[in-house]
Amino acid sequence: MMLSFRCFLFSTSSPSSYFSIFLPKPHSFLPFTFSQKLGSYTTSSSAQSMPSKLLFRQLFEKESSTYTYLLADALHPEKPALLIDPVDKTVDRDLALVKELGLKLVYAINTHVHADHVTGTGLIKTKVPDVKSIISKASNAKADLFVEPGDKIYFGDIFLEVRATPGHTLGCVTYVTGDGPNQLQPRMAFTGDALLIRGCGRTDFQGGSSDKLYDSVHSQIFTLPKDTLVYPAHDYKGFTVSTVGEEMLYNPRLSKDKETFKNIMQNLNLSYPKMMDVAVPLNMVCGLQET
Amino acid sequence: MMLSFRCFLFSTSSPSSYFSIFLPKPHSFLPFTFSQKLGSYTTSSSAQSMPSKLLFRQLFEKESSTYTYLLADALHPEKPALLIDPVDKTVDRDLALVKELGLKLVYAINTHVHADHVTGTGLIKTKVPDVKSIISKASNAKADLFVEPGDKIYFGDIFLEVRATPGHTLGCVTYVTGDGPNQLQPRMAFTGDALLIRGCGRTDFQGGSSDKLYDSVHSQIFTLPKDTLVYPAHDYKGFTVSTVGEEMLYNPRLSKDKETFKNIMQNLNLSYPKMMDVAVPLNMVCGLQET
Repeated sequence: MMLSFRCFLFSTSSPSSYFSIFLPKPHSFLPFTFSQKLGSYTTSSSAQSMPSKLLFRQLFEKESSTYTYLLADALHPEKPALLIDPVDKTVDRDLALVKELGLKLVYAINTHVHADHVTGTGLIKTKVPDVKSIISKASNAKADLFVEPGDKIYFGDIFLEVRATPGHTLGCVTYVTGDGPNQLQPRMAFTGDALLIRGCGRTDFQGGSSDKLYDSVHSQIFTLPKDTLVYPAHDYKGFTVSTVGEEMLYNPRLSKDKETFKNIMQNLNLSYPKMMDVAVPLNMVCGLQET
Repeated sequence: MMLSFRCFLFSTSSPSSYFSIFLPKPHSFLPFTFSQKLGSYTTSSSAQSMPSKLLFRQLFEKESSTYTYLLADALHPEKPALLIDPVDKTVDRDLALVKELGLKLVYAINTHVHADHVTGTGLIKTKVPDVKSIISKASNAKADLFVEPGDKIYFGDIFLEVRATPGHTLGCVTYVTGDGPNQLQPRMAFTGDALLIRGCGRTDFQGGSSDKLYDSVHSQIFTLPKDTLVYPAHDYKGFTVSTVGEEMLYNPRLSKDKETFKNIMQNLNLSYPKMMDVAVPLNMVCGLQET
């Protein structure tokens, strides 16, 4: 028998509660303060006693070396799914995979306003109209829903929590799988360009700040359990995943002290991103020109 | 206290025993027939009561779109590791990662004699002399150790079993993580070029045969549990993993009947691989010119 319940995105009142809040099933969230209602699903009562099971796919777009991530609750009857950092050029591939896997795509999410590719979120919405786009409120970009630090994004019984990790851009966030008895172990951090494998995003445009980036990574990512899997928005050397523990030890920039890090970032002498003047304006409006 | 035990690669007497053999720890393998002794390690007695834990990394080489896989037994005190299908150009990256992760690289393994890139096995052996190279006996290539169908390759308490999957080349094998109470769930199949995600390797050179490839995939890979993860040697569209169940349903070539498959393969009209005349002779000798 199918029982209806609601799927919420809600704020916690204090950043310190990231780790301490007990995370019951979405339908029993009444003690918490809801900030936004994101949709409705159905579930079976039997599924509620089963552990969550993540269906996970990492997808690569070669031209911009971008990773898109597909996550779904495979035990939920509707298999609600989300895409993190989809790219316009690979939307058809991603949606075909969603269909083949029998998933219901619910959210298309960005970690930040990208400067090196056009987001696929707008295109996805034209092809699957029920999908809601999500980006941080701090990004000042357009989307259907805006998240703030401490918000939780549920898909089925699994959730991502939102952590503010500005420094590459002002509005960068990291999405981290939740902490709790029915959540995933080890946790997974989708770090965007804040933390790359053995690297990090540049800090010389879009409100970037090496000072802020250092604080973001050290306070919001390096405080996660060391076995937390790090899934960045890009990789240029063929790495697919790292861990918090590895990056704390071996990241050639962020394992250093703050002043050394700031010096490294000030002396990168990077060229102007060739896609920036096209990508940023488009990404500020979800990847589609306003009509 | 450290107890020494041996790490073996051994043959089973019958292909039908792939699924039925009870797989105890390597040190209690005496009832079985050993075919080759591959090295020695140490372990702690406490580790023997713990489940095996795989450390796994998928690594990408952009030019040939090759995936290299790093696997290690993270619970074993020595963290014995192996690399599947390393590429010469990314050997330094791979060995640096092995070092950072504190692994002891034991084997460098090929699924087949590649025609599109030079294997990294020879170069790895010059940099880490204790590493043993492995390839199938049927490949007729040079290596330290040769495997045949039914052989098992142990690294710590985890093993790969060898399945013959000819058709792309005569000597292609698929390495599958073992079946057993202490082995990995879901299983993982490293399919080389026999089965790609929504595709397969060409069958028009190196002893290739579309007839053989169809039989190989259907008898040796599609008979695995449907949730078995498929990790191919290449992907050209940005996919990183699939499952046996998915490929049985959605592989545009191998989900068809045999005659249709053979017709598809006969009409691909592919160009001659640009690296073939360099790569194949080198790969027949483990990636290094003989001195």
